[in-house]
Formats: sequence, C-alpha cells, structure tokens
Amino acid sequence: MSIMLREIKEQPAMLEKTIRAETKKLDKIGRFLKDRDVDLIVLVARGSSDNAALFARYLLEITCGIPVSLAAPSVYTLYKSRVDLKKALVVGVSQSGEGSDINEVLRRSRKFGAFTLGITNNARSEITKTADETLLIHAGRERSVAATKTYTGQMLHFYLLANALNSNGRRLGIEKIPDYAAGALDLEPQIQTIAQRYTFMENCVVVGRGLNYGNSFELALKLMETCYVVAERFSSADFFHGPLAMIERKFPVVLFGAKGVTRKSNLNLLRRLKQLGADSFSITNDSAIERLSSVSVPLPENIEEELSPIPFVIPAQLFAAHLSAAKGLDPDKPRSLSKVTRTL
Amino acid sequence: MSIMLREIKEQPAMLEKTIRAETKKLDKIGRFLKDRDVDLIVLVARGSSDNAALFARYLLEITCGIPVSLAAPSVYTLYKSRVDLKKALVVGVSQSGEGSDINEVLRRSRKFGAFTLGITNNARSEITKTADETLLIHAGRERSVAATKTYTGQMLHFYLLANALNSNGRRLGIEKIPDYAAGALDLEPQIQTIAQRYTFMENCVVVGRGLNYGNSFELALKLMETCYVVAERFSSADFFHGPLAMIERKFPVVLFGAKGVTRKSNLNLLRRLKQLGADSFSITNDSAIERLSSVSVPLPENIEEELSPIPFVIPAQLFAAHLSAAKGLDPDKPRSLSKVTRTL
Repeated sequence: MSIMLREIKEQPAMLEKTIRAETKKLDKIGRFLKDRDVDLIVLVARGSSDNAALFARYLLEITCGIPVSLAAPSVYTLYKSRVDLKKALVVGVSQSGEGSDINEVLRRSRKFGAFTLGITNNARSEITKTADETLLIHAGRERSVAATKTYTGQMLHFYLLANALNSNGRRLGIEKIPDYAAGALDLEPQIQTIAQRYTFMENCVVVGRGLNYGNSFELALKLMETCYVVAERFSSADFFHGPLAMIERKFPVVLFGAKGVTRKSNLNLLRRLKQLGADSFSITNDSAIERLSSVSVPLPENIEEELSPIPFVIPAQLFAAHLSAAKGLDPDKPRSLSKVTRTL
Repeated sequence: MSIMLREIKEQPAMLEKTIRAETKKLDKIGRFLKDRDVDLIVLVARGSSDNAALFARYLLEITCGIPVSLAAPSVYTLYKSRVDLKKALVVGVSQSGEGSDINEVLRRSRKFGAFTLGITNNARSEITKTADETLLIHAGRERSVAATKTYTGQMLHFYLLANALNSNGRRLGIEKIPDYAAGALDLEPQIQTIAQRYTFMENCVVVGRGLNYGNSFELALKLMETCYVVAERFSSADFFHGPLAMIERKFPVVLFGAKGVTRKSNLNLLRRLKQLGADSFSITNDSAIERLSSVSVPLPENIEEELSPIPFVIPAQLFAAHLSAAKGLDPDKPRSLSKVTRTL
C-alpha cells in the first residue's frame, strides 16, 4: 500500500484526536476574539492548505457572518504593502509550518495590528513562534508528498474556529465528522473500480460549489500531483462563463454533488453535460445527481451539507491514489516536487 | 477580420474616452468614501469580470492599504448569509450589467449597510438601478462573446478608483495607459507569427503573479473559449506546489513577465522549466526573462510594473485571437456559450 493510501486511512483517528485535544483551546480563543470584536478574517496559505482556506472562507462567512479574505501573500512579501488590519484575525495555514511567505505575512500583519493564528501539523515549526496562537493538527508526521490527512485536519480546525466564533449559539455537529469520514473510507472498493475506468484520462474538469468548492481545487491538485492529469477546477456557476466551450472534446467532469443549496446548479450542469455527450463522475449523496451522472460514488443521504466537505473529499483522495496506481505511477513520488515549499 | 480582433483594437480609444468621461465622478466618489472611512472592499464578479477583480485586489491593497475580499456570490445568493458589511465598499463588475447573482449580492450587501458601486458597459442595465453609483465603461457595445475591451475597461475603472481612494496623495500615471495600449497593438505581426508555432497546442499553463495574476486567468479563459485549449492558470509561487509535476509532459508555459518585484520568482520558474525541457512563451519587458524564454513578445522596458497589466494583456488577447484563426476556428463563435450569463 502506498504511503498516500495509508495516510488517507488515518483520517478518522486524526479527526477524533484533534477534536478531543483542541476544542477547549479554540473555545478560549473564540471568547477572546469576540471581545476584540473582529470584523475581518484573512486567511493565508498555499497549495493544499490554500484549498482548505477556500473551504473555510465559505464556512466562516456562512456560519459567523464575518467577511473573509483569502490573502495574496505577495502583497505583503513582494510589494511590502501596509494593509490596515487593526481589527482583523489573520490565520496562516501551513502543514509544515515552514512556508516562508506564510510566516512573513503573519509577521507583517501582527505588526499592522492583527491577531494571528497558525494552523499546522508541526508543533516545533517556525509558524508556532510567529503566530499569537497555534492550532495543532494531531496527524503525526505526514510522509506523503500529496497532502491528505493534514488537509482534512486543517478543515477540521476551521470547523472548530467557526463554532468558537459563532455568536448565535448554533453549534455545528462536528463530533459526527470522524464517523462520516470512516464511512467514506468503506467506499474504497467501489472507488477502485471507478478509477480503472479513467486509466487513460489525460484531462478533466473538477467542479464543486459553495462549501465543496475548495474540494474541487484539492482533487484537481491531487490529480496533477499524483496522476499528471491536467485538471481544471471550477465552480459550477463559473463553468458556464467560458470553460464549457472546451467540453465537446468529451473529457470527463468530476462533480462534488452534496445535497443542499447547490443542488439546482449541479443538476443544471449535469443536464447540460448530458446534452453535450460529456462523461461525468459524481461524488454525491443526492439520488437525482446520481441518476444524471455517468458513474458515481454514493455517500449516505443523511450527511448534512455543512458537514459534507470532509467526508466528500475522502473518496476524491482515494480516487487519486487508485488512479495513480492504475496509471502505473507511484503516488508517493511525484516528479519535480518537494514536501516543504519555500516561496518569497 | 474577426469581431474579437476588431474590438481588441478599439481599446486605446476606449481607454482614453473612459478616462476623460469618468475621472471627475471617481474623484467625487473617492472623497465621499474617505469620509465614510471604508475599511474593507468586497469585489463581486464572474468570468472575465472576475479576472479584472483579481487584478483589482492587488492594485487596491497595494496602493490604498485597504483589505480586499473577492466575494463568493453563493454565500449571499444560495446560503443567504448575513455578512457584516457596515463599513465596506462592495463593487459589482458585470459587462452586461445583467448578471443576476452579481446584482443579488449588491442588493443584499446594501441591505447589510455597504456602499455599492457597479462597473458596467451598459448604461441601461439592471446593475445601474441596483448599485448606489455606476462606473461606466465607454466601449460601445461589445459584440464578441470573448470579452476584451470591457475587460481592460473594468481594469481602468479600478485604476481610477485606486487613485480616488489613495490617501497618500501618490497618483498612478493612468494617463499613460492608452499610449501603452496602442504600443502593444503594434506588436500584432510578431504575435501572429508566434501564434503559428502553437497551432497544435492542446494544453498549456498560464503563469502570472501579483498585479499580472488576473491576466493569467484572463488569457487562460480566452484560450479555453476561443481555442479550446485546456489552459491551467497559476501564480508562479503556487506552481511549485504540485502543478509542476505535470510539466514533464512538455506542454508550454505562457508567462506574464513584467519588470518589477515578481522578477526573481519568474526567473526561478523559467530556469526550472529550462531544466525540465519545457517550452515557454513570455510576454515581457525584461531582457533577462526574454533570454530564458523559448519565444517572447517584447514590450517597452519603460512600462512601470503598476501600469503593466493593461498593455501586457493586449498581446495575450491578440495571441488568443490569432491562435483561434491558426487552428481554423472562429473566435466569434465559441461553442456552447452565450454572452450574458445568468447564474443563481
């Protein structure tokens, strides 16, 4: 078994351990931040961590009503701008904790008055010395170059933060996530069969919307890293603004189809794809989406949309790992990549 | 000549006319917004307009120091969230002025206390009735499905807004932009020759960083719409986080290489591509970048980085239009697309 596959399977345990170890700390930070009257959340990350941040922007705006901005690191690191962040919370996300530009943004935004948090899997890394507080993922070392357990660990921390910042008292049912994740892992045999079908796929488009938009970026990145598939990623809303023109080339569309508010737009897209004769592969818990797709991985219907992103990305991770194997590649050895990326 | 090509060539006149007609209004709005003490700018758009917004996020943060967030429309339209925007300026960008979700976000954010602006090319559209103030692009009707003159018109309005909001008194030399644009058009014969070289290109990666990051998305979109090329877009910083693994497939990288703070990262990328034996095509005014590229379009050295995005995107537009012709396609008739996209 590849390291990537092994780490994918460690996720339910990691999720449970992280909830147990970190909830109290998050609640304390939440009380502190409410007193500070935070009016803006800035998220800063690169690679997979940036995809977790993309998820978080939806989650935090939807559940807390605080506007969120995904930082452009070069504004701080290259252009050296003085951005007014007096009442902002800035969250840096870095698996290794050593991303130089992430740490530089945290340093500069502290100087501009922001309160800073670092989400990392490495308790002894630079980010823990840079941010005001560290939120630790309890994943053990991640050895695979393709991040999996740290991606969902980062997402989990954003759930904990959303609960801690939420002022209307409504709690998300975070404690259900580890079980949902375990259930998703049980789908592996079906996913392995589906991966066979795509052995010779060279291009694809990954589509997700709302809370699952970040997942579409994450699957696309996994496909590029481990399968060398040219994977475009779009919101099903943006897809009609141009990219649809490519689709008659008949390359497959992979869709995150969680039951919920994005349903109508996902169904519209699938109907349009059907007219165009395009192939579609859906990860879904919605029987109407299943019926309109060429193939699908069916998740339990009872998964709430707001809790869907973690259980829905797990079949996607499994798909990338098995597709890599089907293509005769080694997902643990992506060409030209290294685990820690230092950009400035 | 295609409609797309004709409209590309109308840009210098459009830019000049828009500067002349709109500067006063922008300055008045700027004074009003400074009194309001705006502490957040939210930009909302889709398609090409969203690429203009991506440019604007860099420009506004760099020149005004006000944090910028690119809105996720579904947070407002599908999830119906109440985002706290009391001291925010929300700018909707829509060529047609009829994008239903853009207008819905403006409506909701006005209700939540924001001041709203609409940037459009259509003085009689819905957005002009929805936003507090309209910023008009003076481009005449855009008939090509692939937006060109309205994209640079939107960028220009963000320059005018940046000047109007800037409290340090430093003015960008916006009045030089129409001449720079005219100079870029003169490069058409060279670009036409380069386009021939890529006649059989099916995939590519477009790379830009900082102020030219939005342009990389825009060129990728043009290539998808008019040439059916699967075009990935990345920041040269993110490129090392995964996508680089695909590059040994030897598909070309198109780079926006404006002289300035992104230079080092662009040179690093080109050196890495050279090691990997990949093809590169640069739009650049930096002789070092030119030397490291397989082919390049050379722009005048004296173009300042902060004014580069409009003159640099024009060769990219010309490239897409000529590549479409080289491939035997009609850039004015992209498959499956319509000019006005209504998403909710």
